[in-house]
Amino acid sequence: METSFLAYLRGRCRTLPEVEVGIGDDAAVLAPVQGRQVICADQIIDGVDFDAAGQSLADIGYKAMAINLSDIAAMGAVPDAAFVTLALPKDDATQTAGAVYEGILESAARHQVSIAGGDLSVYDGPLSINITMTGHVAAGEPWLRSGACEGDAIVVSGAFGGSILGRHLRPISRLSMAATLRRLVDVHAAIDASDGLSLDLDRMLAASRVGAELDIDQIPIHDDAHRQSEQSGRSAFEHAWSDGEDFELIMTMSADDAQKAVDDPKIGKDLRRIGTVVGRTGLWKRDKGSLKRLSPQGYLHG
Amino acid sequence: METSFLAYLRGRCRTLPEVEVGIGDDAAVLAPVQGRQVICADQIIDGVDFDAAGQSLADIGYKAMAINLSDIAAMGAVPDAAFVTLALPKDDATQTAGAVYEGILESAARHQVSIAGGDLSVYDGPLSINITMTGHVAAGEPWLRSGACEGDAIVVSGAFGGSILGRHLRPISRLSMAATLRRLVDVHAAIDASDGLSLDLDRMLAASRVGAELDIDQIPIHDDAHRQSEQSGRSAFEHAWSDGEDFELIMTMSADDAQKAVDDPKIGKDLRRIGTVVGRTGLWKRDKGSLKRLSPQGYLHG
Repeated sequence: METSFLAYLRGRCRTLPEVEVGIGDDAAVLAPVQGRQVICADQIIDGVDFDAAGQSLADIGYKAMAINLSDIAAMGAVPDAAFVTLALPKDDATQTAGAVYEGILESAARHQVSIAGGDLSVYDGPLSINITMTGHVAAGEPWLRSGACEGDAIVVSGAFGGSILGRHLRPISRLSMAATLRRLVDVHAAIDASDGLSLDLDRMLAASRVGAELDIDQIPIHDDAHRQSEQSGRSAFEHAWSDGEDFELIMTMSADDAQKAVDDPKIGKDLRRIGTVVGRTGLWKRDKGSLKRLSPQGYLHG
Repeated sequence: METSFLAYLRGRCRTLPEVEVGIGDDAAVLAPVQGRQVICADQIIDGVDFDAAGQSLADIGYKAMAINLSDIAAMGAVPDAAFVTLALPKDDATQTAGAVYEGILESAARHQVSIAGGDLSVYDGPLSINITMTGHVAAGEPWLRSGACEGDAIVVSGAFGGSILGRHLRPISRLSMAATLRRLVDVHAAIDASDGLSLDLDRMLAASRVGAELDIDQIPIHDDAHRQSEQSGRSAFEHAWSDGEDFELIMTMSADDAQKAVDDPKIGKDLRRIGTVVGRTGLWKRDKGSLKRLSPQGYLHG
């Protein structure tokens, strides 16, 4: 199927100026990147990360793009090109590839990303979608996990919890908020919440060798977390704290910058300050005057 | 296994200046590329592209790098960074990953490539290795399949056939010859022979909308093709013509440049001229004064 499918794809893929040669040669040729280049890679597999029998293949393709776009946003970067590699189960391989690509191409068009290359295999195994994505930071430095400083405000780009009810398939990619924040303030550190707010916050702070004092009441809880709570018997807060796949950004910046960002009309009301970076490692909350340690929870990959 | 294995990998991976931030953040950060960037992606899967039961896992990891390095060489480029994504069968996942990485890291060290990122999954399926590799062309243009001109000489970087006897696992990556040729001559078009000399030659010429008149007797036949012929009953020439995974380069350049390259002591005697590009599409040989059409053969992906 490879030759004919690649011909079909070449016809469907938009040509954007950052890709000088796309699908069809031994490698793609990219135009020189302005500033710094970032590259991420994420794969999702049927039976591990999604359930192909219960979900639309287009949604799954869209999600494979979204998890990479979220990583690009977490670097404060703009996405450029995607390299898409599929491993396709033998039955209906061409039909599966076509359906997955509907979601991939929808995402690529929405976010101005070129599908510049990749690979296709047909095999005796579950559907697997692997995307490597390039992006760039035109001016300034990419946002790393390791840049948080004592005294920084901790801000999040939106509400958490209950994404499993459906939102996880077509998450908002916070590229536009990241671009606005880059112009407006100086972000010191960032990570995207893929495995759970508390777990990813803890990872970012550990990379920065600092901790956090959290204002627990300020953590935005998604309506889905409340709905999920009714089914699960766990509190909505617990879902917000530990559910994965929110794909919101967790960032640190000076307290003044955080105030400026929260007040800015272009940022909107999704951005919320949830705490302060402290020198003592770990996650903490103030309870009747004394500090109590919180346990990070979330999805740990097998 | 992911967290601890990534920590192990970070320790094993060499830091090269082109990668400013490697494994461990949301994305890698690459230093600005000098000239033009090329990016390729290739996956190999147990049961489709190799047999994990009968081969060393380190060899398979080495090969996954080699097929990408061969694509970089075919662009006339220098490799920079690799993004390695593994899908690992549940049984002995960590041990499998470690063994595969032995070969990947050996190749990375030999060819000065940084392992800058990737992903790991454990699943109910066969071992799959997916590598996306970046490279650059510091000065001049990447070599495309589409640049062959009527009158060009067709040259190959080495001998063909019988790679299945073992050579396919640890092929010579023609990066060094590509670098020498870039300094010495003007390569018009190039492709690497992964699916068979005749099939890949035909692909390159089709992309250039031209054909070839071949001097069949000049096609270098590998000793392995002769050995394979004894087992298969097919001629050694047939093996050279259609076996895949030689990973030699097929290139076109002016006749004068071809002579200059063949005569150059740095290139060595592996380079051979095997024919001439003609305006009429297809592969041809001259037989008693008249042209006879040849049929391209090789490995067509399911």
